Amino acid sequence: MDCLGRQKRFQQTLGEQKLDAFVVTHAANLRYLCGYTGSNGLLLFVDGRRLFFTDGRYIEQAHEEVKGARVVIARGPLLPEAAKILAKAKSARIGFEADLTSVASAEQMKRAAPKGVRWKATTGLVMRQRMIKDEEELKLIRQAVKLGARVYEEAARSIRPGVSEVEVAGKLEFAARQAGADGMSFETIVAAGKRGALPHGRASGQPIPKRGFVVVDSGVILRGYCSDMTRTVHVGGAGRVERRWYEAVLEAQLVGLAAVRPGVMAGEVDEAVREVLRKANLDQYFTHSTGHGVGLEIHEPPRLGTKQEERLLPGMVITIEPGIYVAGRGGIRIEDMVAVTETGCEVLTPVTKELIEIETS
Amino acid sequence: MDCLGRQKRFQQTLGEQKLDAFVVTHAANLRYLCGYTGSNGLLLFVDGRRLFFTDGRYIEQAHEEVKGARVVIARGPLLPEAAKILAKAKSARIGFEADLTSVASAEQMKRAAPKGVRWKATTGLVMRQRMIKDEEELKLIRQAVKLGARVYEEAARSIRPGVSEVEVAGKLEFAARQAGADGMSFETIVAAGKRGALPHGRASGQPIPKRGFVVVDSGVILRGYCSDMTRTVHVGGAGRVERRWYEAVLEAQLVGLAAVRPGVMAGEVDEAVREVLRKANLDQYFTHSTGHGVGLEIHEPPRLGTKQEERLLPGMVITIEPGIYVAGRGGIRIEDMVAVTETGCEVLTPVTKELIEIETS
Repeated sequence: MDCLGRQKRFQQTLGEQKLDAFVVTHAANLRYLCGYTGSNGLLLFVDGRRLFFTDGRYIEQAHEEVKGARVVIARGPLLPEAAKILAKAKSARIGFEADLTSVASAEQMKRAAPKGVRWKATTGLVMRQRMIKDEEELKLIRQAVKLGARVYEEAARSIRPGVSEVEVAGKLEFAARQAGADGMSFETIVAAGKRGALPHGRASGQPIPKRGFVVVDSGVILRGYCSDMTRTVHVGGAGRVERRWYEAVLEAQLVGLAAVRPGVMAGEVDEAVREVLRKANLDQYFTHSTGHGVGLEIHEPPRLGTKQEERLLPGMVITIEPGIYVAGRGGIRIEDMVAVTETGCEVLTPVTKELIEIETS
Repeated sequence: MDCLGRQKRFQQTLGEQKLDAFVVTHAANLRYLCGYTGSNGLLLFVDGRRLFFTDGRYIEQAHEEVKGARVVIARGPLLPEAAKILAKAKSARIGFEADLTSVASAEQMKRAAPKGVRWKATTGLVMRQRMIKDEEELKLIRQAVKLGARVYEEAARSIRPGVSEVEVAGKLEFAARQAGADGMSFETIVAAGKRGALPHGRASGQPIPKRGFVVVDSGVILRGYCSDMTRTVHVGGAGRVERRWYEAVLEAQLVGLAAVRPGVMAGEVDEAVREVLRKANLDQYFTHSTGHGVGLEIHEPPRLGTKQEERLLPGMVITIEPGIYVAGRGGIRIEDMVAVTETGCEVLTPVTKELIEIETS
């Protein structure tokens, strides 16, 4: 990983923000900036240098993983330990991540620091940098998405009436494990029949009914990076209404993909998708936003929701995932991961979106 | 669940702390106090009433699950929404969970609240109540521990040379899924041979070697409650040194169990365990604490570490898990979950701790 390059870019941000020092403790930010994958770590930017703090459990791991920062093994809580360093530094204006630091931790840190220090609550400084993926990240994300697709296709073959939702989820997760995934990027959703109307219906012990849609939303973590995809299949032959619904969601999804390009506002993509469902008179069933960023975390900015003004830029990786949820009937969602390119987007998810009807013989 | 009883007890705590109102947002605390299992919830204690806030995605779920509180569906962020209620209330001194609320969230909440309000940063008020499990919780925990034991035993049968660590972990997790677990309570650890020397060596793609210890540390979540257990088996016949090591860890674990009773300080149990390993001249390899509380979360107070002064009380549920980690050789850890009773403790984990040597034929 190009940790030094990332640290250098972040150092520039600190300059722009007129910060002499900065404290990072959020796990995904640590992994991104210095390569550390353990828990209980702290990266301190101070006077142009970087110090990395952790505890005795992670001595070996820190020395092995951390790039571009001197490793310090602390005996107690890390925040006070880092704050002490500031006593010897020239730093006067110190940033910390206000949305990722608890009130109690911030108090502890402030108490331990020398008096002259001015603390500056910031939000999203590292995240804004992470939002644009570098080449290495894109490569890792492509691999994660491919693996996620493969294990989905393997598990999808087990979908048939009478098989429980958790069995399908279990097959998918087992395949991911065997293929070397670090884990799942979120709780696997398998929602069959009426349960499909719950947008977050994680797999239950319910058997798949004889007829109806089955929504499978799943993702793996591979070398730290998340994948995220949804496909909806139909058990038994789909009726006329079901077909119309599916075609509308698919059209919305394709229109969403076509709308993705640099300079477009996230909310415009959401609106393009919503408009297709509006014309099909199904927009009242589309109860969530169109997508979100994905990377080291499963939900990252930008959010592709109504009126979101964030502009898409090359290197962003996002989901496009319209869905409809009809109480008492079921749900349909179709989701790809895409990378924004210079001219449009690269669809990463290599799985067909044609309506698959599973024969029940 | 006896949510009303729990809310009533917590209301007493608020009285003792001279708090007129209190804001709860931490997921496990919400589940404990009002039964809610979704994300993005907020429980507000105010003037002797309870209000529960969530967003539109969870309308049905909140109405179904939440007990003892009026459900309010908010249009925006919950903290400002709850803070607004305070404008109409008589509350002047309002507690919030300083260790579980970010600086940014706290600021947002304070800005939205009327001016007369005094905010009081608290830590652990709900957690202290959760530390003592009620009968219903003990029942659920016993079930979780039993399920965790069963899936461990099933997966352990697959341990043999050449099988990869993740395959064993995958079998365990699949069995848990099939048996109806909500999920795993932490990333399954399967650490074979030299990798056993990493106390947190989660399962890797490495094959199990022909000879050596295999540490399996795993837990399930069943109806919200976590299990946690570790067993160490030996692939092939164990040598004299390995046997001595194993016997020492087992003795330390049994001495730990014998030390658990009401009134004893957590640090005294840790010291009793450490003393056994000291006599065996192995204490330098015991690099973590003896145990921790378990419940709705996998790591809860009390912590059974050096000099911890928290006194054990009936209803606490803790782990006793000494281990040794010898770089270049391997590791051994033996862990049970136990409930503190009026007179001593009830060992919950129903799996043999005799040294099992797996024939490699």
